Amino acid sequence: MLKRFIAVDWGTTRLRAYCCEFSAQGEVQLLASAAGPGVKKVQTSFPATLSAVIAPFIQQFGQLPVLMAGQISSSIGWFETDYLNCPVSPQAIKPAMVSVKVDELTLHITPGLRYQSADGQDDTMRGEELQLLGLLKRYPHYQQGQHLICLPGTHCKWVILDYGKVHWFKTAITGELFDIVIQHSILLPPLAALPTDDTSGFLEGCTRSLADSPESLVHSLFSVRTKQLFTQCNAATARNYLSGLLIGADIKTIMQSIETASCQNKPVVLIGTGQLQQAYANALAAAGKSSTLIAEQDVALAGFGFIAADQTNLV
Amino acid sequence: MLKRFIAVDWGTTRLRAYCCEFSAQGEVQLLASAAGPGVKKVQTSFPATLSAVIAPFIQQFGQLPVLMAGQISSSIGWFETDYLNCPVSPQAIKPAMVSVKVDELTLHITPGLRYQSADGQDDTMRGEELQLLGLLKRYPHYQQGQHLICLPGTHCKWVILDYGKVHWFKTAITGELFDIVIQHSILLPPLAALPTDDTSGFLEGCTRSLADSPESLVHSLFSVRTKQLFTQCNAATARNYLSGLLIGADIKTIMQSIETASCQNKPVVLIGTGQLQQAYANALAAAGKSSTLIAEQDVALAGFGFIAADQTNLV
Repeated sequence: MLKRFIAVDWGTTRLRAYCCEFSAQGEVQLLASAAGPGVKKVQTSFPATLSAVIAPFIQQFGQLPVLMAGQISSSIGWFETDYLNCPVSPQAIKPAMVSVKVDELTLHITPGLRYQSADGQDDTMRGEELQLLGLLKRYPHYQQGQHLICLPGTHCKWVILDYGKVHWFKTAITGELFDIVIQHSILLPPLAALPTDDTSGFLEGCTRSLADSPESLVHSLFSVRTKQLFTQCNAATARNYLSGLLIGADIKTIMQSIETASCQNKPVVLIGTGQLQQAYANALAAAGKSSTLIAEQDVALAGFGFIAADQTNLV
Repeated sequence: MLKRFIAVDWGTTRLRAYCCEFSAQGEVQLLASAAGPGVKKVQTSFPATLSAVIAPFIQQFGQLPVLMAGQISSSIGWFETDYLNCPVSPQAIKPAMVSVKVDELTLHITPGLRYQSADGQDDTMRGEELQLLGLLKRYPHYQQGQHLICLPGTHCKWVILDYGKVHWFKTAITGELFDIVIQHSILLPPLAALPTDDTSGFLEGCTRSLADSPESLVHSLFSVRTKQLFTQCNAATARNYLSGLLIGADIKTIMQSIETASCQNKPVVLIGTGQLQQAYANALAAAGKSSTLIAEQDVALAGFGFIAADQTNLV
């Protein structure tokens, strides 16, 4: 068994790297972690960015195999890998890994998943399939029955797991839209991009989007500006209100879609971290839905661990 | 009567300046026009930008009064003016003009309009009220009955004129969302921001948004990327498809809203110019609605002309 490895979850906005070790019981232990810029944020090159981020791991533990998942293997990434077609078990990732040698490093890169609807619409994911794999390994009861999983992020993924297979999924660009609106729109002054723990205004935005009205986001988003003009709403509150509008619109569509109907009597399994995970939980509650919160890092490591275990070819 | 004046329509994205003269019959003649950066695009200062744009007019005709409308009088502009509350006749703009002296220039700035819905939601416009005024002056038959007016732009305005009064209006940030998505999103490669006369893909986007489905834009927008991944859709076509998705969503909401129901048996009066006006006309046709195309510049000048005429105080 492979004793130590590096796992890299390299998404659109952020790179997360983990230096891992298997315990005597075969469980993944985290030795160290590091962060870097996402695929869209890389200033230098992909190899230089990766080398810099994982250098401390290699300095301490010597050369290690690198497992890599996320947008980094997409058409806007570094090495493009294929897609596995749904319905598919996340376990199918393991034999479909692609290995590439770059200087001293050996990279083992996951494939993505592709879903095609009956009317020919395509959807894709890269990175979340690893977390789904980890969910099924870490919490095996999700291998039974149907479950609606939500993985918020730059692109939020909604997934139906059906007896352990990815049966359906749908992407929402909720996080990306939030980022580009707060950075580039006239709806908010520049300072609203500052981080804050204040969440006032969020539920008001949610409630507006969840309301039984045909209003589209192109219309409701203008209220982010008018609230600042005519009410005692400061830019931070307006920013939270915007977040509520977007997440509310995301959840409303999913709850109205035929595909999720059979899962809606169970809690939504919410894989994420920090404020964004909590925001989705609050928005789901506003929509009358309960959720089960699962830590993203735990299931990501469990997924990487499953890939790394018993892989004598991962060197 | 004031013989010559400068009219400035200074919006979020663009500044348009017109040097005008009244004919012996009291009609507005265009002597020259110029363009400059919108409120969000100004690199130097508002006074320096305006001076540079209108300098050729002043060089040729001497100092002239400047009439100014648009986002320039908003909270993100230069001199903030008040709002007139709806329902209101656009003629009420004239006595509510604000005059400001800046060095050699005298600026006469229009107020904005504000609409507040029964449930307390606010909406605002700045600049379009001048075009509505011009519409009513240039085409007096619109003073009778109810008409649905659409003024596409960075922020598209939908207006109900009720016997010559602005009875209701609603803003859609359709144009701004299109701009920031093509410039900053990962949905499209950078080159897709290039202008093109190719409109392939537009109607497909429209049709998807107009379809009888609860899908929100946060979901449908991801298809801009998947179309490029899996179909023979290049970035220019994907850009047009994105435009169709956004304009289709805009129109669908308006056509489903209770407020517009009484106007929907008449053509939509579409005030605009060029490709964007044509795109809305095509999208309305895809929604089964006819439209009457009105040239934005004609009604803007007619509106400015009404403000300037018989104004001995405009010096």
